[in-house]
Amino acid sequence: MNFKISKRVFYSALNTVSRAISSNSPLPALSGIKIEVNQDSIILTGSDSDISIQTTLSGNEEETNLIVKETGSIVIEAKYILEIVRKIDADEIELEIVDGSLTKISGMSAEFRINGMRALDYPAIDFTRPGQQFEMDADVLLKVISQTTFATSDRETRPVLTGVNMKCSGKRLECVATDSYRLARKIVNLTSENNFNITIPAKSLNEVSKTIAQDSSILIAVSDKKAQFWIGETVIQTRLIDGAYPETARLIPTEFAHELTVDSRDMLNAIDRASFIKNEGISIVKLSANSEEVVISSKSQEVGSSVENLNIIAYEGNPLEISFSGKYVFEAIRVLSATTIKIMFSGEMKPFVIRNMDDDSILQLVLPVRTYS
Amino acid sequence: MNFKISKRVFYSALNTVSRAISSNSPLPALSGIKIEVNQDSIILTGSDSDISIQTTLSGNEEETNLIVKETGSIVIEAKYILEIVRKIDADEIELEIVDGSLTKISGMSAEFRINGMRALDYPAIDFTRPGQQFEMDADVLLKVISQTTFATSDRETRPVLTGVNMKCSGKRLECVATDSYRLARKIVNLTSENNFNITIPAKSLNEVSKTIAQDSSILIAVSDKKAQFWIGETVIQTRLIDGAYPETARLIPTEFAHELTVDSRDMLNAIDRASFIKNEGISIVKLSANSEEVVISSKSQEVGSSVENLNIIAYEGNPLEISFSGKYVFEAIRVLSATTIKIMFSGEMKPFVIRNMDDDSILQLVLPVRTYS
Repeated sequence: MNFKISKRVFYSALNTVSRAISSNSPLPALSGIKIEVNQDSIILTGSDSDISIQTTLSGNEEETNLIVKETGSIVIEAKYILEIVRKIDADEIELEIVDGSLTKISGMSAEFRINGMRALDYPAIDFTRPGQQFEMDADVLLKVISQTTFATSDRETRPVLTGVNMKCSGKRLECVATDSYRLARKIVNLTSENNFNITIPAKSLNEVSKTIAQDSSILIAVSDKKAQFWIGETVIQTRLIDGAYPETARLIPTEFAHELTVDSRDMLNAIDRASFIKNEGISIVKLSANSEEVVISSKSQEVGSSVENLNIIAYEGNPLEISFSGKYVFEAIRVLSATTIKIMFSGEMKPFVIRNMDDDSILQLVLPVRTYS
Repeated sequence: MNFKISKRVFYSALNTVSRAISSNSPLPALSGIKIEVNQDSIILTGSDSDISIQTTLSGNEEETNLIVKETGSIVIEAKYILEIVRKIDADEIELEIVDGSLTKISGMSAEFRINGMRALDYPAIDFTRPGQQFEMDADVLLKVISQTTFATSDRETRPVLTGVNMKCSGKRLECVATDSYRLARKIVNLTSENNFNITIPAKSLNEVSKTIAQDSSILIAVSDKKAQFWIGETVIQTRLIDGAYPETARLIPTEFAHELTVDSRDMLNAIDRASFIKNEGISIVKLSANSEEVVISSKSQEVGSSVENLNIIAYEGNPLEISFSGKYVFEAIRVLSATTIKIMFSGEMKPFVIRNMDDDSILQLVLPVRTYS
C-alpha cells in the first residue's frame, strides 16, 4: 500500500468514520480505522459493531489529489492516525506500508512510523443496500432526530425504549420515542411509498445527526436487520433494536378540558427558574392555573421555595393544579423550537400534550407527577 | 436585612467572591457567601480558608443602585444564590430576611425563599492590610503568574514546591517556581522598596489571575502570614506556604557549549508532533543537533516512531544529542510568548535554559531525561 492524498480531504474522512469507533471496543481491530486502497479510490471504515461508517474517497475528484502507487490495506489505531494527520503541517500526505504492518505516514519534513494491524483481522461488515428506500432532506431528518431521541429511555431494562420507533405505511412515516414518562411523536410525509416498522438506537441517530450537513438530501435504506443513511459517498449503517415496540397511539389523549397558550421562551425561563429547587436531584414544578392567573412554583424542604406569575397569552378551562418534572417539560418545549406553544390538559393526573402552534407534525406528551403537599 | 440592588452589579460581585469557595469545604458555612449589609454598603465574602475574597459594593456608586431598607447579615449557599440571581429576569433584585434565616430573593414576578445560614456561624477572617506593600500593573502580574505557576509541583510531598517563591530585596522581585525537574524564574522591577521572602500557593495565584482585569493596577500587601491582592474594592487574600524555599540560583548554568536559535512556533509544532508518541503516558523527545541539521525524534515500542527536520535560525556548538520531556519543554516555550527563542545547553546530561530573545526578565530551565536506546 502506498498513496498520496490531500491532507484536508483525508483528515475530514478519517474524522467522519472515527465517529463510529468506541474507545472500549472488545475487539482490538475495531479501535482502528480500516484503510483499503484500490486503483482509483480509498475506502475508510470505522465501526463499533452496532454502528459502522464507511466513506469512499475517489481519485476522480479534483480536490482529493489522490495518487495510488500501490494498492493494499491496513488498520491503524484511530486516535493515532487522526492526531498524526491533524498535526502534519503539509497540504499532501503520504501513507506507505514499509514492513509487515508498520506504516509510514509523512508530509513535509515530518515522518511517522506507526505499528498498524492487519486488515485481515478486521471484521467483515456487510454494507449491501437494502431494498426499502426513501429520501429525506437533511433539515427534516435533523428535526426528526432532535425532536425525538431525547425522549428515549437510557435504561436497558426495556431495550426497545432506548430507540426511536419508525413506522412507515404508504407515504406516512411516524417516529415515536418514549421512556414511559414522556413521549415524542413526529410525523413526516415521504415522497415515496414504503412499509416497515423498525426501531433505531437513539445513539445511532445522534451519530447520524453529527455527520450530516444541512442542505443535503439523505437516502435512507432499511431492512428488518439494519438501517443505512447515505450522504453522498458516506454511509452510516446501524443495527436495529429487536422486539415489538409498544402501541403508543392509545396513550395520547384527544380531548382536553384545559388549554394554556404561552410564549415558548417565557415558559422555558419560568420552568428553568423553578427547576433549580430540587428534591434529591429531581425538580418537581407545580402549575396552578385559573382564569385570573397562572402560577409556576416549586418547593423543597432543604433548599426553599420559588413562586412566580407566568405571562400567558390565554388560558381556557376550569382551575387546574398539576405537578410535573421540570426537566421533562423543559426538554419537550425546547425541542419544539416554537414561538408560541399550547399545553393541553385532560385532568390533574392525566398525561398532557404540548404543541408548537405553527407546526402540527410534532407532538410532545408528558405524564404528571403525584405530589403530597 | 432588606435591600435592593442592581442585578448585574450584584451578580458580578457574587461571581467574584464565589471563586474562593470550594465545593467540598469541611465547614458548612464556607459553602456559602456571606452578605453583610451596612447603612450604605454591602460586603460579600467567599472563602475556603486557604483563599478568601471580599468585595464591597458601595451605595455611593451610581450603577450599583443600592437601597438599604434594613441592615443585617446572612450566609447563603453560593450555588443557590448565584443561580437565582443569574436566572431572575429583572434589572433590580431585592433580598430580605423574612424569618430566622429564611431569605426572600425577588425580582419582577419571580420570588424565591431560600434557607440561609446564620452569619454568626461564618468563621472570622482577618482582612487587615499588612505593611509591606507595592503596586504592580495587572498585565505584569498576569505574566508573572502565567510564566511561573505551571512549573510548580502538584505533589504534596514537598509542600513548598506547590507555590511560587517571591523574594524581594529592594526594588528587585524574583519569582521562582520549580517541581525539581524544571524551573521558571521571572524578575520584576518594582517602583518601591521592600524586603520579604514568601511562597504563595500556585492555586491562589491562578485564582488571582482569573479575577483581575487587564489595564488595572494591583496593590499587593504581604506579611509572613498572608498575601493580599487589592483590585479596587475587591481583595483576594491567601495564606502562605510555610517552610524554607530551596536556593535555586546555583542550579541555573551560566556557561553554555551549544546554542540553538529557532522560531518559537516551529519548535512548538515539532515538539507537539513528536510528543504524541508516548511511552506509558510520557513523551520523551530527542533533539539531535549538528552544524548541518537539527532533528527532533521520538520512539515507543508500542506505537511507533517519529522523526523530523527542524527549521532552525542558528545552531552554534559541537554536535549534541539530548532527550527531554516533550510536555515540559512545550509548556516552557509556550509561556515565553516569544517570536524567537534561544535554547542554551551546557552538556547532554545538564539542565538547559530556554530564553525569549526579546524579553530577558523570564528564564525557563528544564532537566534532560536519560534514555537507553
